[in-house]
Amino acid sequence: MDASKRRFIKHGARLLAAGGLMAGGARHADAVEPPNVPPSMKVPGAGMSEYGSPARHESKVTRTFIRSQPGTTGSGASRTPLESLEGMITPSGLHFERHHNGVPDIDPAQHRLLVHGMVKRPLIFTVDALLRYPIVSRIHFLECAGNSQLLYQPAPPNLTAGQTHGLVSCSEWTGVPLRLLLEEAGVDRSAQWILAEGADAAAMSRSIPMAKAMDDAILALFQNGERLRPENGYPVRLFLPGWEGNMSVKWLRRLKIVSAPIMTKDETSRYTDLQGDGKSLMFTYPMEVKSVITHPSHGMTLRGAGLHQISGIAWSGNGTIKKVDVSTDGGRTWMDAPLAAPVLPRALTRFRLPWKWEGAAAVLKSRATDDSGAVQPEREKFIAEHGNNAVFHFNGIQAWSVAPSGEVKHVYA
Amino acid sequence: MDASKRRFIKHGARLLAAGGLMAGGARHADAVEPPNVPPSMKVPGAGMSEYGSPARHESKVTRTFIRSQPGTTGSGASRTPLESLEGMITPSGLHFERHHNGVPDIDPAQHRLLVHGMVKRPLIFTVDALLRYPIVSRIHFLECAGNSQLLYQPAPPNLTAGQTHGLVSCSEWTGVPLRLLLEEAGVDRSAQWILAEGADAAAMSRSIPMAKAMDDAILALFQNGERLRPENGYPVRLFLPGWEGNMSVKWLRRLKIVSAPIMTKDETSRYTDLQGDGKSLMFTYPMEVKSVITHPSHGMTLRGAGLHQISGIAWSGNGTIKKVDVSTDGGRTWMDAPLAAPVLPRALTRFRLPWKWEGAAAVLKSRATDDSGAVQPEREKFIAEHGNNAVFHFNGIQAWSVAPSGEVKHVYA
Repeated sequence: MDASKRRFIKHGARLLAAGGLMAGGARHADAVEPPNVPPSMKVPGAGMSEYGSPARHESKVTRTFIRSQPGTTGSGASRTPLESLEGMITPSGLHFERHHNGVPDIDPAQHRLLVHGMVKRPLIFTVDALLRYPIVSRIHFLECAGNSQLLYQPAPPNLTAGQTHGLVSCSEWTGVPLRLLLEEAGVDRSAQWILAEGADAAAMSRSIPMAKAMDDAILALFQNGERLRPENGYPVRLFLPGWEGNMSVKWLRRLKIVSAPIMTKDETSRYTDLQGDGKSLMFTYPMEVKSVITHPSHGMTLRGAGLHQISGIAWSGNGTIKKVDVSTDGGRTWMDAPLAAPVLPRALTRFRLPWKWEGAAAVLKSRATDDSGAVQPEREKFIAEHGNNAVFHFNGIQAWSVAPSGEVKHVYA
Repeated sequence: MDASKRRFIKHGARLLAAGGLMAGGARHADAVEPPNVPPSMKVPGAGMSEYGSPARHESKVTRTFIRSQPGTTGSGASRTPLESLEGMITPSGLHFERHHNGVPDIDPAQHRLLVHGMVKRPLIFTVDALLRYPIVSRIHFLECAGNSQLLYQPAPPNLTAGQTHGLVSCSEWTGVPLRLLLEEAGVDRSAQWILAEGADAAAMSRSIPMAKAMDDAILALFQNGERLRPENGYPVRLFLPGWEGNMSVKWLRRLKIVSAPIMTKDETSRYTDLQGDGKSLMFTYPMEVKSVITHPSHGMTLRGAGLHQISGIAWSGNGTIKKVDVSTDGGRTWMDAPLAAPVLPRALTRFRLPWKWEGAAAVLKSRATDDSGAVQPEREKFIAEHGNNAVFHFNGIQAWSVAPSGEVKHVYA
């Protein structure tokens, strides 16, 4: 470590100890003008590119894998590294993945979407035809029903925020209101359900209630401005705002209008929630109100007492985040954390709160409330109500402990 | 072309002729259940990845180059392919580039930001130190002052929407309010300007009025959730919402607090606007109210009369888009185009309007109005006021002609 670095650290510590904002040391202007010219100013920079990538210094910021590995085919998941991100938008390259038989390679010129069953006019759409329909754009989160499932375990799994909560991401989705296609096909009045089927090798399929289809469901064609990414359903996916992710069927090829749910493998053997009393909940659609502190979080170390920023995300499949409370004493007292505008329905909502850490042990928690009045429950209460085997729909409060050394760890508290 | 395709096209044409929505042909469900199983359902899909990329079928959707080429170093620009995008967010890989000496490769661990000049305490910040400050997130457009400069030419340049208007993009920017650092440094009361200098080999430098710095300027560290891309100023850039892009100095290394503008090369030999009377405007900061129809636009062909969707973007450096009028008859009559929520200050705002094209020649225009009351001028009026040599700040109305063949071309009208 060179002298200037040592000076910076010493200075930094002094400023923090004085309770001021964190500065990187100070020198007199006279001594530094012109300041040392960095290497980047001495050589011409790199050329422009057709499609950009993150800085090579950020190469460790990737999707996170727990049970799967990069390259895993078949069934698996990769997670958004929430602890490395800020704001509400998830870059598409880091959107979580959950596949039941890998990522199909679909030629959009060959792809067809069939609308059939209890309709006056069965219809087949090319992607080009879908692109000519009126479209809408909406910023929404997407959360896998199984997000945070490791928190059903009796002991804290000691994982990062991305590993525990990273099966949620948020994008601007643009596509055709499903209602338009259904009206064109002429849905039979007695048809209350729709089978949605993907063109992947798992034929991922779910039964969708007609009311949701006619309300805010869209056939998404664009994600964050550009066409969908392959792992998010290219060339077209169903998107059901606020509902469990698997129902937003990717690589959508078929909508069959039916009178009753089909009871597909993906809504019977999977995506049902085994409760403590041995019964299973089926068709638990909206993802419940939830939040997690992403900074600081497990795996980080606070460098010194003083002012730190608590930052996190909150979301609810039932509406708009109304309030996020943050506690630094394990839930004994709570502070209202300001929400970053725009606060949108069924979208990730960023909350941030400055925190003056005195250097003692602390336990951080966040608790979200949505505009339906629903409040994120303590984990203990959640487990008491739902048991330890439900796998899906975990939305308990997440706690991180801060040790006097600054080390941040996952705890149940 | 196979029989089913021919049938689709015939069907499609019939539906369009009837004025209905566009459907991709129709067959009876009995005949197609189960429908032909596509190849993607017969083989396992590809594996998951650490960082995703667009579909290979979208490989032509890249930044657009006119005078530069991919790989161009030194001074140059690449443009956002607006005609291929939808919604308000620009994916970071397609954000426009404008460099004065290429893209520097900066190690964030070595980078320093110096705040000096007329301050009580000169300060040096590491990137890690900046990351500990309170941060804010804002969705804002960024527009190069030279965007649309080819439209000063006497003849229409016959370029796509991205080529004429693609030096504008929109991201969620997250960073530290500059005000906080200035307050910490203790700015002298008589200091009304700040020199901002980049760490690129061009030492790109501009003088920033103190009022803007203390108002909504941020030191951006994140773009669309992840850390800045190299071509957008990694590891830290100045961001001045609504102002000409070059002032949001990338790779920011130095802020010198001064009493008067420095008159750098980048605000004297460049980025001054030569008017018709031979005088130049300097320090023309906010980008004026503007819009462009991205679909349909030059280079596209409408496939058949019937219902089409007009879609475009509007923005203003002076505030929030209040209204976008669309004309399909060259400006004789105008229709109010609905704006896609959320409509945010100094952000791209998407407008969309269904249009029943009768198959006759048409001229499409859009005209934006912001909440300051400013209205985007007709090109003719704009040129009459500013002359043909201003290079920068062109915000005239853009016209696209539609021929009976469906061909869409750039025209002055």
